[in-house]
Amino acid sequence: MSDPLRLGIAGLGTVGTGVLRIVQSHAEMLAQRAGRAVEIAAVSARSRGKDRGVDLSAYGWEDDPVALARRDDVDLFVELMGGEDGPAKASVEAAIAAGKHVVTANKAMLAIHGQAMAEAAEDAGVALRFEAAVAGAIPCIKALTEGLAGNRIRRVMGVMNGTCNYILTRMESAHLSYDAVFDEANALGYLEADPTLDVGGIDAGHKLALLSAIAFGTRVDFAGVEIEGIERVSITDIEQARDMGYRIKLLGVAQMTGRGLEQRMQPCLVPADSPLGQLENATNMVVIEGDAAGQIVLRGAGAGEGPTASAVMADVMDIARGFRVPVFGQPARTLAEAPAARSAAPAPYYLRLTLEDKPGALAKVASALGESGVSINRMRQYGHADTAAPVLIVTHTTTSDAIAHALAGVETTGVLLEEPVAIRIEEV
Amino acid sequence: MSDPLRLGIAGLGTVGTGVLRIVQSHAEMLAQRAGRAVEIAAVSARSRGKDRGVDLSAYGWEDDPVALARRDDVDLFVELMGGEDGPAKASVEAAIAAGKHVVTANKAMLAIHGQAMAEAAEDAGVALRFEAAVAGAIPCIKALTEGLAGNRIRRVMGVMNGTCNYILTRMESAHLSYDAVFDEANALGYLEADPTLDVGGIDAGHKLALLSAIAFGTRVDFAGVEIEGIERVSITDIEQARDMGYRIKLLGVAQMTGRGLEQRMQPCLVPADSPLGQLENATNMVVIEGDAAGQIVLRGAGAGEGPTASAVMADVMDIARGFRVPVFGQPARTLAEAPAARSAAPAPYYLRLTLEDKPGALAKVASALGESGVSINRMRQYGHADTAAPVLIVTHTTTSDAIAHALAGVETTGVLLEEPVAIRIEEV
Repeated sequence: MSDPLRLGIAGLGTVGTGVLRIVQSHAEMLAQRAGRAVEIAAVSARSRGKDRGVDLSAYGWEDDPVALARRDDVDLFVELMGGEDGPAKASVEAAIAAGKHVVTANKAMLAIHGQAMAEAAEDAGVALRFEAAVAGAIPCIKALTEGLAGNRIRRVMGVMNGTCNYILTRMESAHLSYDAVFDEANALGYLEADPTLDVGGIDAGHKLALLSAIAFGTRVDFAGVEIEGIERVSITDIEQARDMGYRIKLLGVAQMTGRGLEQRMQPCLVPADSPLGQLENATNMVVIEGDAAGQIVLRGAGAGEGPTASAVMADVMDIARGFRVPVFGQPARTLAEAPAARSAAPAPYYLRLTLEDKPGALAKVASALGESGVSINRMRQYGHADTAAPVLIVTHTTTSDAIAHALAGVETTGVLLEEPVAIRIEEV
Repeated sequence: MSDPLRLGIAGLGTVGTGVLRIVQSHAEMLAQRAGRAVEIAAVSARSRGKDRGVDLSAYGWEDDPVALARRDDVDLFVELMGGEDGPAKASVEAAIAAGKHVVTANKAMLAIHGQAMAEAAEDAGVALRFEAAVAGAIPCIKALTEGLAGNRIRRVMGVMNGTCNYILTRMESAHLSYDAVFDEANALGYLEADPTLDVGGIDAGHKLALLSAIAFGTRVDFAGVEIEGIERVSITDIEQARDMGYRIKLLGVAQMTGRGLEQRMQPCLVPADSPLGQLENATNMVVIEGDAAGQIVLRGAGAGEGPTASAVMADVMDIARGFRVPVFGQPARTLAEAPAARSAAPAPYYLRLTLEDKPGALAKVASALGESGVSINRMRQYGHADTAAPVLIVTHTTTSDAIAHALAGVETTGVLLEEPVAIRIEEV
C-alpha cells in the first residue's frame, strides 16, 4: 500500500459532514479500493463548537480555510463552503499554489473562475475535480469526460435543479399555481436564502456551463448561457401541455451550432413519455448524446448529504488511485473560445394565445404566423365561458426569431386579450 | 505529448470496425483529450480480404491473434473476437504475459475466467478493462467502480439484453405470443446463432456476474447466478401484469444477503411507472443503489457498432491517460468468496392460477396459501367463457420457498386446471 491520502475539508455543512461520515465509517473499504488509506488530516468551518453528530477530535482544526489549504499534512483540499468568491476562491487558489489537489462542489465558483483555476491546477500538476458540482450523486462529469471520451458530443441536456423540478411537478399533481407551491416549498425549507438562484435558473445555468465546456472543448462561458427561470410558468400551460402529451421542465440544453455554442436554461416542453418527461420531484437527470454512443441517460438524486458526499468521494477516490485527467477533459489552454449563439437551433414551439371571441380573430392569427414563416402543426381552441377564446398551437420546427416576429405580428392584429405565451419544445 | 498508445485489434466484426472508424475519424480529438496520440499498429481477423468499408492498409496484419497480442509495436491489445475460450482466451493471456494492457468486450470469457485473468493482469501490472462487456454504451462499469467508489453497494439491477427486452415489449405492443415474436426477430436477424444465449438469460447472466463482483467485492461467480430465460413468459401474463400496473422484464438483480450473495437473472414484474418499467425495445438499463448515493439509473443503447465501440474507446482512453484501477475495483486476490444465496431476498409475487369453476375452489387456494404463510395483497378473478376460472393474486412480501410450498399445497387441492404461474415482483 502507498502512503495515505490526507484530506483537508473546508466547510462542515450537510455535505462536509456527509464526507466525514463516509471516510469514518468506510475506512477499510476505501483503502481496499484505493490501494491506500484515505484519511482526514484537518478541517475548517465557521463554528468549531457546533454539534454536527460527527467526532472531529482526531483532526486538526483551522479557523481559516486558506491556512487549511496550505497545511503540510494536507494532500487534497476539499472545498465545500460554496460562494463564487470569498474564502472558497481564496482557499482553492492557495491549495493549488501550494501543490495540493482540489475537490470542490462549488458550481458557482467554477462557472465564473473555472478557466483560470483549471489553468493554474494544470500548470501546478495537481488535480481539480468537481463531480459534486453538477447533479449530485449522478457521475455525469465522469461519464462525459471519461465514459464518452471517444465521442464527439452532439448535445447535452439536463434537469439539474431539484427545487425547480419539485415545484413544477407539484404544481401539476396538486393543481396549484406557481406562487402557491413556491410558498409551500419556502415553508418546508426547500428554498435557498436567495431563491432566485434556484427558481431563476442560475444554479442550473452554472451546472450547464460546466458540462458544455467538457462536452465541446470550449472555455467555460456562463455569461453565454441564455437563462430563463420558472417564475412565469403557469398551471394553465402545464395542464394544456400535458393534454397534448408534453410536460414542462426547466431544461438545460447545450449544443454546438453553425453560429457557435448554444447554451440555454429555460422552461421547455418535452414529450411526457420520454425519460426527461417522466422525471418527478427533486430527482435530477443528465442526457448526453454522442456520435458513437447515441443517447445516454443518467438519473439520480441531485442534492442531499449522502448523494453529494458520494460524488465528492468519487473524486477523492480517483485522486487516491492516481488518476489524472485535465480539469475539463482536455488541457485548459487548448479549450476553444466559441462565440455564444443564442437560440440558434431550430425547434417547434408551443403557443398559447388568448383571443377576442370574434369571427375572423383566428384567421388573423394564422396569417400573421404564416407571414413570419411559422407553420402550424396542431391547433386547438378549448372551451371557454367568457369572451376570451384561448387557442393552443404547436408549430412545426422554426426559430425563436421567427416566433418573436410572428408574435409581434399577432400583436398588431389587435385580437390578443393577454400577453401570448411561447415555450420551446425540445425534441428529446 | 507522451508517446502514442499503439493498439492491436483482434476481431473486425461490427464492433472492431466501429473502433477503427472512431480512431481514424477522431484522431485529433482523441489526442487532445488523452494527451497523446491513439494509433492502430496492427489488426487481426478471420478474413484479411473482406470489405469492411474501412482502410486497413496502414496497419500491420496478423492471422493469429496470439501473435498480434505479442507484437512489439502493440501497447494495448483489444480483444473483440468473443467466445469464452479459444483464440480470445489464448490471446488475452498472451497479451498479459507479454506485459500489454487489454481491453475486451467479452462478457462470457470474463464471467468464466475473469478471476484468473484479473490476477494475472494485476501481477503483470497491466490494465484489463471491459466497459463494453456490459450494457453497451452505458458507462456502468465506470460508474460502479469509480463514480460510486465511496459507496457500499446495496443492490445492482439491470435490463442488459436488448433482444429479450425487444421481444417482451413487442409481445405487449403487438399482442403477440412469445413464439410469434421470436420467429419475427429471427427473420429480422436480431438473434444470435445460438438464441439460447439471449432468450435463455445466459448473456445477461454473464453481465450480472461481472457487475456483482465489482459491487460486492466478491470473486466473479457466474455459476452462482440463478438464471431463467424469457421462453415461458406468456402474453397473458404480460397483459394481466400491465392491467395491475406492472411490466415484465428480464431483470438481473444482485444483492448481498445474510445468507450470501444473491444473483438472479429472471423475468420479474416491475412497476410500470418506474424507469425499468418504462424501458422500451432494445434499450438497456443499469440501476445501482449505494448507501450514500441512493439510486442511480443509467440508460442507453446496449449493442450496435457505435455504442459498443464507444465503450471500448472509453477504456482505451482511460489507459491512454494512465488510469490504473484494479480490474474489479479492488485487488483481485482480495475479492471475497461469498457463498451463493439462491432467492434469499424476500419479495411479493404475482400468481396466476387457472381453477375449476366450482364453488369452494378459491377458498381452497386461499387456505393453501395461508398454510404456507403466504398472505394475499390483491386478488382478482377475471372474465372467462369456459369452465376454467383464471385467478390473479399479488401476494405480500414472502420468500420463493414459501411460494413453492404454497403452490405445492394448491396442487394437492385438485382444483388447478393448468400449471400455476409465479413471477417475482421486484420492488424498484
